[in-house]
Amino acid sequence: MKFEVTILGSSSATPIFQRNPTAQILNINEKIILIDCGEGTQQQMLRYGIKFNKIDSIFISHLHGDHFFGLVGLLSSMNLNGRVKALNLYCPAALKDILDLQFLYSGSVLRFPLNYFFTQSQQVQKIVDNADYSVETIILNHRIPCTGFLFTTKKKLRKIIKQKVDALSIPKEYIDLIKKGFDFTDSQGNIHSAQALTTDADAPRSYAYCSDTLYSLDYLQSIKNVNTLYHESTFLHDMSQRAKETYHTTALEAGQLAQVANVDNLLIGHFSARYKDVNLLLLEAQSAFKNTYLAVEGKTFTV
Amino acid sequence: MKFEVTILGSSSATPIFQRNPTAQILNINEKIILIDCGEGTQQQMLRYGIKFNKIDSIFISHLHGDHFFGLVGLLSSMNLNGRVKALNLYCPAALKDILDLQFLYSGSVLRFPLNYFFTQSQQVQKIVDNADYSVETIILNHRIPCTGFLFTTKKKLRKIIKQKVDALSIPKEYIDLIKKGFDFTDSQGNIHSAQALTTDADAPRSYAYCSDTLYSLDYLQSIKNVNTLYHESTFLHDMSQRAKETYHTTALEAGQLAQVANVDNLLIGHFSARYKDVNLLLLEAQSAFKNTYLAVEGKTFTV
Repeated sequence: MKFEVTILGSSSATPIFQRNPTAQILNINEKIILIDCGEGTQQQMLRYGIKFNKIDSIFISHLHGDHFFGLVGLLSSMNLNGRVKALNLYCPAALKDILDLQFLYSGSVLRFPLNYFFTQSQQVQKIVDNADYSVETIILNHRIPCTGFLFTTKKKLRKIIKQKVDALSIPKEYIDLIKKGFDFTDSQGNIHSAQALTTDADAPRSYAYCSDTLYSLDYLQSIKNVNTLYHESTFLHDMSQRAKETYHTTALEAGQLAQVANVDNLLIGHFSARYKDVNLLLLEAQSAFKNTYLAVEGKTFTV
Repeated sequence: MKFEVTILGSSSATPIFQRNPTAQILNINEKIILIDCGEGTQQQMLRYGIKFNKIDSIFISHLHGDHFFGLVGLLSSMNLNGRVKALNLYCPAALKDILDLQFLYSGSVLRFPLNYFFTQSQQVQKIVDNADYSVETIILNHRIPCTGFLFTTKKKLRKIIKQKVDALSIPKEYIDLIKKGFDFTDSQGNIHSAQALTTDADAPRSYAYCSDTLYSLDYLQSIKNVNTLYHESTFLHDMSQRAKETYHTTALEAGQLAQVANVDNLLIGHFSARYKDVNLLLLEAQSAFKNTYLAVEGKTFTV
């Protein structure tokens, strides 16, 4: 099952030329999901060939502008493009007030259902649970209420060994049962075990998104053993005092957290505009956790 | 006196790759003015080297998103960049509600004075009158209240002929008086007329900004004889019915209006996303008015 993340923006709040504010696209088995939507996300989607109307769900972590100022424009464009398919929006409740006011004054009426699911920042909620994946919130610690998101794919059915099934001429009506673990009895009464006719299903995979937050172990439980952790790394560690004051994390801390949480891979982003060369942040994070990568514009990672 | 307009965006509401929504920078004698502020205006300013904090005043024509969705982000960035200098914002009153709500929920407090001047869309107002220029609104006809803006520079003092002044060794304390039209009497009692010592001051120059509007002659009086008219040209004339329905203008109509209004130059923009090649719009406008130019991203025109 496909599980990829494409980065549309790597900057923190202060803009910098050719670095965009936070937005990421998840592709989970061709379900397209947008996480955060800083200003200019529409243009980034056009740049990387991501069709607006393929998006099923949008998750907004918090109401600092670099994480949502692009949303009203994206929704307006979906509307202008004739979208009729419902869209799910997981966000703090106040975002509805902000969007409603702008639609009111611009005389805009959305022609597609916008289904709001309000997050709350004090306890973990399971906010999505469908056939392909589930989503739980991650309780972060920022200047204003802020939640991360943990995406976990579902364990799917076992995989048929086509050669064996073909050799036994098993009717296709039985295939789903075998995938589900039912043995097959042929016309001679021989039993062929489901185990022998299939291989294991893909293991569930998980992506944890943590931006923005003060470094802490409070949310360790939410990110433990995930395959890929995205964590903000706004500053180098020589600015750890500034990171604390602004409720952000340093690259070193992000690396340490990935190490303690025993993740497979760490992606870092949300870089302060002061860093023209973000490789400094990469090297610092890698000093604590080797499998660290820069979550920069246009990069796609398999989770 | 410098009077230039730089185009930051040429698209209409539906976004298109590498075409940005409306925003223009005026430079009037080094006073920097922003007209409209679509999403991504910040990035366009970074691209073309326009410093956020040099902006003195912002004019917003109306509350369709492609004309103001970039404003809250720009104001936030000015704040993050430490701006303390006051900023004048000329806009429909409802914009204050929209901005206030977003600042409230993001916990942002502007550290610079934001002085609002509310436009009203029913009658021409003089909204600026300073030593360098004045601004009057232009009453446009769009789906929601919408005003254009007419910028007119002031007639300045006459210009000294340096050679003559030097030859007469006129003390520098007299220079301003001579510029103002006072004659100079030398130590022998000879009178040198101000007229003889100076040349005419630059004539006032004018820039009319008209976006978005249904084509009509109702605002002809406001744009008559201006040096440069910017006028929206959303569609080609074969879509004049669609233009009417959406309260927009065709390229041909913009050219005809420029001709009737007897302007020196016409800039056209706000192009529908359907036109990959905007030269078609240029040719159509030029068929009615020869001195027409495309107001596209990065172009600077002397008014």
